[in-house]
Order: sequence, then C-alpha cells, then structure tokens
Amino acid sequence: MENPAIILISPQLGENIGAAARAMHNFGLRDLRLVNPRDGWPNRDAADVARNANLIIENTKIYDSVKEAVSDVNILYATTARPRDMVKTVVTPRKCATSLRQYVNSGEKCAIMFGPERTGMSNDDIILADSIVTVPVSADNTSLNLAQAVSVLCYEWFVSGDIMLEEIFVTGESGPATKLEVTMLLENLESELDKGGFFSNPDMRQRMLQNLSNIFTRNNLSQQEVKTLRGVIRSLVGRK
Amino acid sequence: MENPAIILISPQLGENIGAAARAMHNFGLRDLRLVNPRDGWPNRDAADVARNANLIIENTKIYDSVKEAVSDVNILYATTARPRDMVKTVVTPRKCATSLRQYVNSGEKCAIMFGPERTGMSNDDIILADSIVTVPVSADNTSLNLAQAVSVLCYEWFVSGDIMLEEIFVTGESGPATKLEVTMLLENLESELDKGGFFSNPDMRQRMLQNLSNIFTRNNLSQQEVKTLRGVIRSLVGRK
Repeated sequence: MENPAIILISPQLGENIGAAARAMHNFGLRDLRLVNPRDGWPNRDAADVARNANLIIENTKIYDSVKEAVSDVNILYATTARPRDMVKTVVTPRKCATSLRQYVNSGEKCAIMFGPERTGMSNDDIILADSIVTVPVSADNTSLNLAQAVSVLCYEWFVSGDIMLEEIFVTGESGPATKLEVTMLLENLESELDKGGFFSNPDMRQRMLQNLSNIFTRNNLSQQEVKTLRGVIRSLVGRK
Repeated sequence: MENPAIILISPQLGENIGAAARAMHNFGLRDLRLVNPRDGWPNRDAADVARNANLIIENTKIYDSVKEAVSDVNILYATTARPRDMVKTVVTPRKCATSLRQYVNSGEKCAIMFGPERTGMSNDDIILADSIVTVPVSADNTSLNLAQAVSVLCYEWFVSGDIMLEEIFVTGESGPATKLEVTMLLENLESELDKGGFFSNPDMRQRMLQNLSNIFTRNNLSQQEVKTLRGVIRSLVGRK
C-alpha cells in the first residue's frame, strides 16, 4: 500500500537518520534508503533515535551511488531550495504529496531524495529528479533541518491520503444533544428565571432570551451536558 | 505580524525545546512560552539545538502555571490525541492553521499548547482550550515526538499564509521558450531528418512527427534549452 521511498544522500548524523525513520513510521512510510552514510551502517545513534521505527532501520537499504538507489524508481523528487541555475519544475510539499498519491495509485514506484545536512543536494543528483520539491520557510531562515524536511514531506504524504475530517465534534459516551433537548433546557431555564423575577424589564425580555439561547446553541452541547445543566438549574433553584 | 504563541507544558528534554524553537524560527513564529520546564531555565541543550533560533530561546517566557501562560490569549488550541472522555471540537492541523490565520488577522491573540513528552496534556489543561488539534498519524503509531508535533503545527501555520505557488517552472537566467521557438526547433529537426532519409516509411511520417513534437512540447523548454538543442542538431548533422 505505502510506496514512496525516502532516500538520504550521504547523511552525516545518525540522529537525523533515526528521526527520519521515526517520521516515516509516524506517517506510514517504510522504504528508507541511504547512499553512503558518513558514519557507516548500522549506526547506533540512528537506532536510538528511531525508537519504535526499529523495523524501518533494520530494513534500511544501503547504496554506493544515487543512481543505484533510484534505479527502480519511476517518479523521483529532489528536496532542495529553489535552484537558480537549473530548468526544473518546483512544487510545494502539498502538491508533491498529492501527485505522489496519484502516481502510487497508478502503480508507479516513487521516491523523494534529500541531500547531506551541510551542503544539500548537488546539481549532479538534482538532475536525476523529475521535479524539485521545496519546503517553504520563513524568509530569514532558509536552512531546514534534514529530519524536519523529511517530517514535512512524510506528513504531507500521510495527510494526502487521510480521511480524517478537518473538524469533528467529539462527545464521548454521550451523543450530541438534539435541538429538542436544547429547547427544553432553555424553556426550563426561562420558566425558573420567570419565577425568580429575572426579567425585570419586560421590553428586554425577548432580547435576553435570545442572548441566553445563543449562549447554549453555539457551543454544541452533548446530551450529558444538557442533563448536567438541568441539574445545575435545579440545584440553583433549590438553594434559594 | 506573527502572533500564535507556542506553549510547552512541563517539557522534559532541552533538545525538544530547542527543536521547537528551531521549527518556530523556520516557520515564522517567535512567542515561545514554557510552563515549569523540568530542567529549569536557561537550558544549555535547548540553546544548542536551537542554533539560529537563539533569539527565540533568549526571549522565551517562563510560567508557573498554564493559566498564567494563557492569561492574555483569546483563542487557545490544545494539541493531543482525540480524547474519549471530553466534549470538544477536534480539528486537523490544517484547519487549525486556517482558523488561526483568520483570528490573527482579526487581532486576537492565539496560542497552541503541547503537553509533556511522556504523558501528553492533562484533562485539567485541555479544558482551558477552545478546541483540540490532533496531528493525524499512522494507525500503528499514535505517539508523535513533541518537537515533530510542534513542527507540523508551525509548518501548517506558515503554509496557511504563504503565497508560494504550488507548482512553478524555474528557468534560471533564460526565460521559458515561446511556442514559435519550439516550433522552429521542430521544423529544423524535421528538415534535417528529411535530408538524412529518417522517414523511410511515408505512412508513418505524420505519426513520428507528432511523437517528436510531444517529446519536446511536454517538458517546458527554456529559451536556452532550445538553443542548446539546435546546436545538438547542427553538431549531429556535421558529424556525418
């Protein structure tokens, strides 16, 4: 099901390899490939930082060259700042993820490459890619940590296929209240307030009832909360 | 201009505070607040990891309680997995960022809270928030590193206000080729191929010209690349 490989070219710090694996694990990717990791492989720092992503670390594939690492890839993105001296299409991480999702659904093997921490990707490697993906960053800081760049791309990959509703009202065990339940709560409140002489100015009565209604309708009460509020009213009334 | 505060509640690791500051710096935020950091403040690990974000670290504000940390805040999000026992609206990071952008544009002070590494946010703190924001993660791994969670929210904040085109064709010094320049290149190629007897089967001629045209029109040539290809044709012709 998952497909895009994450390819780290000559990564220097094991911590960054581990953090990349962890981000992949968080966001549903598994195929990690390293080209000439500086400190060799396996790498204890990588394994320590990866934690639960140990399976990704164990199955990491090591290559001597970028060309070998991408030999089975159909669609290849290079992650780098927008280049000045190259003719390429540059996309956002979000656009990259949407496209990757489509390519993967069509059965094409995809990959995203990242350059070494200090220098970033070399032009020789960038030219192998179909497109460049650039993580947008604040104008006064264009250097993004390698693991953070991997995280952003993995996150966008996951979100591009996620079915999570952008907004949901969670009510726990209790269901959301019906309009009838809220109306009955408000009528109960109105009745008790009338008994206490709350609406001293009859001209303002309608307006105050509207205000009260808005307070309790705009915040999506659960059934349990309606019950709680009716108990609150009973308690307050009984206290007099 | 920037506005949302990042509030870390009882953070344990200085590295995570530093990485959070770095993510804020990358994505244009500055207002970092800590509630009871475990190892006190200042924290050398935080400063080491923060690197260029040292100004954020220097200006970090320290509080004794969450209530103090949020006292000036109008709109407050709590970052946590979706709760089971609480009635709250839960939004995605993207929805959160879009809403934050609107609130900030209306002059409201906003903040996003994050709980301690091991335990996450307590219910006592979650209830202070207007809404919950949940970073979607793969089903087999619901634990997201604190710094990664901060990164995702800061990234979405930045992207929600970013004007970067989702796809752009970068051509460097040279401009993109006009249709006329590409047509002339293709006519030049056709003429040279005719001289060499390339189209041996006249029935296939039209089809092959179409194929050649598609090769060079689908990849957005720059003006310089058209010149280069004309030079290539001249060179190949001269070699015979």
